[in-house]
Amino acid sequence: MTLVTTTIIPIRWESGRLDILDQRLLPRQEHYLACAHIEEVAEAIRTLAVRGAPLIGITAAYGLALAALSATNLVDLAKQRDLLASTRPTAVNLFWALDRCWGMVEQLPVGADMAAVADALLAEARAIHAEDVASCLAIAQAGVPLFPAGARVLHHCNTGALATGGIGTALGVIRALQADGRLAMVWVDETRPLLQGARLTAWELQRDGIPHRLICDNMAASLMAAGEVDAVIVGADRITRNGDFANKIGTYGVAVLA
Amino acid sequence: MTLVTTTIIPIRWESGRLDILDQRLLPRQEHYLACAHIEEVAEAIRTLAVRGAPLIGITAAYGLALAALSATNLVDLAKQRDLLASTRPTAVNLFWALDRCWGMVEQLPVGADMAAVADALLAEARAIHAEDVASCLAIAQAGVPLFPAGARVLHHCNTGALATGGIGTALGVIRALQADGRLAMVWVDETRPLLQGARLTAWELQRDGIPHRLICDNMAASLMAAGEVDAVIVGADRITRNGDFANKIGTYGVAVLA
Repeated sequence: MTLVTTTIIPIRWESGRLDILDQRLLPRQEHYLACAHIEEVAEAIRTLAVRGAPLIGITAAYGLALAALSATNLVDLAKQRDLLASTRPTAVNLFWALDRCWGMVEQLPVGADMAAVADALLAEARAIHAEDVASCLAIAQAGVPLFPAGARVLHHCNTGALATGGIGTALGVIRALQADGRLAMVWVDETRPLLQGARLTAWELQRDGIPHRLICDNMAASLMAAGEVDAVIVGADRITRNGDFANKIGTYGVAVLA
Repeated sequence: MTLVTTTIIPIRWESGRLDILDQRLLPRQEHYLACAHIEEVAEAIRTLAVRGAPLIGITAAYGLALAALSATNLVDLAKQRDLLASTRPTAVNLFWALDRCWGMVEQLPVGADMAAVADALLAEARAIHAEDVASCLAIAQAGVPLFPAGARVLHHCNTGALATGGIGTALGVIRALQADGRLAMVWVDETRPLLQGARLTAWELQRDGIPHRLICDNMAASLMAAGEVDAVIVGADRITRNGDFANKIGTYGVAVLA
């Protein structure tokens, strides 16, 4: 597979500070929230400044590492963990990441000081982040062969760099199609009510120079009937073992229409 | 059929002036444009202050009557007619109403003065308006038996008092269902991009005390799958002899899903 990248950085760890791109201000303003305290990270998750299941998990992991820098002991740190866990009750990646990081803490030698805890948590956050980058690439590699050359692809919601630690899931496949010269057009639906498509996905594609057009959600059927859509690709908030999945409102509609 | 009415008055003739409810300001503000000149009426049609195929026809008819009050001769009046005709190239009712009114002018005795022309045009505008009121009632009467008792009805776009001279077409059927005690709920979709559902239909239903909930266009499929929709009713900009029809974007989608 051709090298697939993105120019978008949704969060970045800056020695003791977590910078979070405030997605609520996109596409008009590109502003990073400089979070030095765990409360700021929790607030960013709670108010959707940062969103997207994988990215929420990564953010929470860095958030816990941030908390360890100022926590006086593990009881204190556990409270910070619970604060993070309370921010988005439906975000499974959030609990998964926090549990995984806490597991690292529990594996440390008894009596390890907080500096060691902080080091271990930061290393684990970086590992989670790196694994997500790799997951996105693997999804892209698996996805590309499913699409015809010159594909015109309808995309719902945001599943890109703004939702993950890497090139995205569904949008990662689209980036890979573009890198392989197999993409003709992305139909970006608005994704009402929060406009993740109109505000975030269209912005990502514009930033990365990928051909796209924004449509209203209710235009999908007519575009399909006119033969303008070769494939539909969407995100998945949860996937069950039998392949069923749950995702943003509007996903079922495009599936039935497709 | 039970008496079916609406409290909404989208246009009214006030002795030599046409008051047009400015639909661009709804639902926040209820403001009438007091049009004393044909240019103001043309501008109101052009800028969607007044919309809805039947209502545009009625407005144009009153507009021509207004023009006759100040026109010096028929050549002058024909220019005003052409100005009105240029406002909405896709509005068939506009051309139909203007042709019908002009036909009345041509039937007047040779040498009739402009006062007589104005009288004839106002009478014809009132006739077109009254016929539309009757058409809406007839559509409602024909539509009601098609719906089950306790119907939960999905409605797309605006087809109500704000689109016609009377109770509306598709929304007239809904008003009649409500009057007959056969309506449980109207699912009002937003109707992107111009939000005729969110801004206009929801406002009409609220004004007239009809139970409704606003949904995003992309929620229709999930609501249907959940068994929450018994019927879908939409407007029709044009209907062909074989029953095919053209309507606002999004109509085809709900039809396929239904």
